[in-house]
Amino acid sequence: MKNSSCLVVFSGGQDSTTCLHWAMKRFKDVQAIFFQYGQRHQKEECAAHLIADLNKIKLHTFPLDFFKHLGGNALVNSNIPIEANSQELPNTFVPGRNLLFLTCAASFAYNEGIQDLITGVCQTDYSGYPDCRENTIKSLNQTISLGLNKDFTIHTPLMHLNKAESVRLAVQLKAMDSLRHSHTCYEGVYPPCGNCPSCLLRAKGFKEAGIIDPLLPKVN
Amino acid sequence: MKNSSCLVVFSGGQDSTTCLHWAMKRFKDVQAIFFQYGQRHQKEECAAHLIADLNKIKLHTFPLDFFKHLGGNALVNSNIPIEANSQELPNTFVPGRNLLFLTCAASFAYNEGIQDLITGVCQTDYSGYPDCRENTIKSLNQTISLGLNKDFTIHTPLMHLNKAESVRLAVQLKAMDSLRHSHTCYEGVYPPCGNCPSCLLRAKGFKEAGIIDPLLPKVN
Repeated sequence: MKNSSCLVVFSGGQDSTTCLHWAMKRFKDVQAIFFQYGQRHQKEECAAHLIADLNKIKLHTFPLDFFKHLGGNALVNSNIPIEANSQELPNTFVPGRNLLFLTCAASFAYNEGIQDLITGVCQTDYSGYPDCRENTIKSLNQTISLGLNKDFTIHTPLMHLNKAESVRLAVQLKAMDSLRHSHTCYEGVYPPCGNCPSCLLRAKGFKEAGIIDPLLPKVN
Repeated sequence: MKNSSCLVVFSGGQDSTTCLHWAMKRFKDVQAIFFQYGQRHQKEECAAHLIADLNKIKLHTFPLDFFKHLGGNALVNSNIPIEANSQELPNTFVPGRNLLFLTCAASFAYNEGIQDLITGVCQTDYSGYPDCRENTIKSLNQTISLGLNKDFTIHTPLMHLNKAESVRLAVQLKAMDSLRHSHTCYEGVYPPCGNCPSCLLRAKGFKEAGIIDPLLPKVN
């Protein structure tokens, strides 16, 4: 595949940054797409631009404020405190977010003549989001191929990895310089808050992998 | 189903207006959703509001300007003249438009506790748009049910009708008062231009059904 083009759905976070490096090993022309969907803060977009620049990747940004108008969840409404509850869907659940991102990515890719899409969704640590699961993504792959009348492939390099395995993959892919600039914290602060579900999941993965997270400020 | 709720993807055009009346026969609570996706003119939205008001239907409007930013097609760029070419996809093809509309409709429906979606897509006169075909919609139905972890049903009352049969169905459903206010012309003019692919298709259907289009100004 090294001579073809691909499009990475890119958020500037840990997983999609690892995917960006995964793609750079496999495709000649790697492009990335970032959606401004009404995030609580600008940190994600700044991280995405910085990492794309660092790796000389063309980054396409698109406003997609549907979810902001839809409202009702903590990811796009900073008045709602972020809570994780193992008994039900977390209140950061944006219904259909990955479906919409991948559908829009496919529309853009269609116009650019790109048929390979890459996303960092992961079933192992899927945090209760049903559109991160493999059966959803396989079904969506078929849907966009039918709906655009073109054979798309959605690649999910992290689908069956846990966070520690993702960290080890990132090390193998020499993604640490990029991960130093990635953004994960739901609260949008630096240093990361360390308490939100997203920070806790990231810290757990690095700890289990026995790797120091390059994002964190050095002690001393 | 008469005691449940549904959501009609509504454009203010002939097909979705017929679907609105189809839904009113079958569901107790009918709601409609309209997407402002960067249409060439405001006529569609005005028609949607008028028809919804006439039928006492709650209409939800959402900005969805992704396609405007995507660009490159005649439906959202009034600098590109509309052309139909039977040899290839028409230049009004917005890649993935129906996929995106139905995915967004499902996200909204999810939050409202609605599981029945209705769309006017039609395979018979599908005008070269692959996301109007039944296999695409069936696949999408499965994708949104998996991705939102809820059993959705996408109803497509017009899927296998030709335009004349759709007109006859509209007559049966007593939709003529609504169709008088519907908007079809790509050029956004009233009286309709009569020459764009959309006007020609509508006129053909009414002619074959032997019905006078209530939209047209009365002679005398």
